[in-house]
Amino acid sequence: MAAPATPRDPAQRKTDVLDKLRREVDCWVASASAIGDAYLIPLSFVWDGSTVTLATLRRSRTCRNLARAGWARLALGPTRDVVILEGPVTEISVDAIDPALADAFATATGFDPRQLAAQPEYVYLSVEPRRIQAWREANELPGRDVMIDGVWQA
Amino acid sequence: MAAPATPRDPAQRKTDVLDKLRREVDCWVASASAIGDAYLIPLSFVWDGSTVTLATLRRSRTCRNLARAGWARLALGPTRDVVILEGPVTEISVDAIDPALADAFATATGFDPRQLAAQPEYVYLSVEPRRIQAWREANELPGRDVMIDGVWQA
Repeated sequence: MAAPATPRDPAQRKTDVLDKLRREVDCWVASASAIGDAYLIPLSFVWDGSTVTLATLRRSRTCRNLARAGWARLALGPTRDVVILEGPVTEISVDAIDPALADAFATATGFDPRQLAAQPEYVYLSVEPRRIQAWREANELPGRDVMIDGVWQA
Repeated sequence: MAAPATPRDPAQRKTDVLDKLRREVDCWVASASAIGDAYLIPLSFVWDGSTVTLATLRRSRTCRNLARAGWARLALGPTRDVVILEGPVTEISVDAIDPALADAFATATGFDPRQLAAQPEYVYLSVEPRRIQAWREANELPGRDVMIDGVWQA
């Protein structure tokens, strides 16, 4: 295998994380039941500059798990350009969502839960990052914490 | 956005899943503690034709969570070409691993836990698929179950 690139400095990792949050459409969402059954699916999201907003069915396993835990761990890939983002989850109903945020979600993801009112009920899930990690290869594991306790490290 | 491709038939999905298992180096591994704290990291793996083998530190959160649960949910990406694989987990020590499998793991992943005996202890985690799902876009969600109860559906 080719030698991995030189590790990025904290400022570059922050730039790359923000770029990925703006650019990517989907993330991996891990969740768990109260008795420790893990679950994992991809969901579309929008980044509004401070928060990741997802949308899914209120009765889905992911929504029930995240509402219970009040905390989400999300990953953006690929696996050799990882961003892991954790933070508290707030459930927002289709009626209560900020219309500008809902518009941004629809533009980013190509689907608009507000248009699906006759379908099984969708909810938005807003995740405020408290911890963000970013690494590519093993040589970037040191320094992977780009946000700790809600504070950017660069 | 461009219209998504025509949904693949079951045989094509099986072919694509097996190809991805042979070709990919990393997968996403979801796990949870007994009290429902979800966790998610990427790990390297090898597919030997019937089983996914991972390796990680015995004291890592993922290893402890998977050993407790006895069940893993793994994902291969990207998020618009998803394979989700679930099944029982068996822990195999570095001393007990089949040498051919350990060799295959080292070749596939570029790292060999047997060479790290002086390091904190690594273990292999073998996941036997019981359920596999594969989809690209939303139009492939119907028919996404390519293996149910250990049986290929094509």
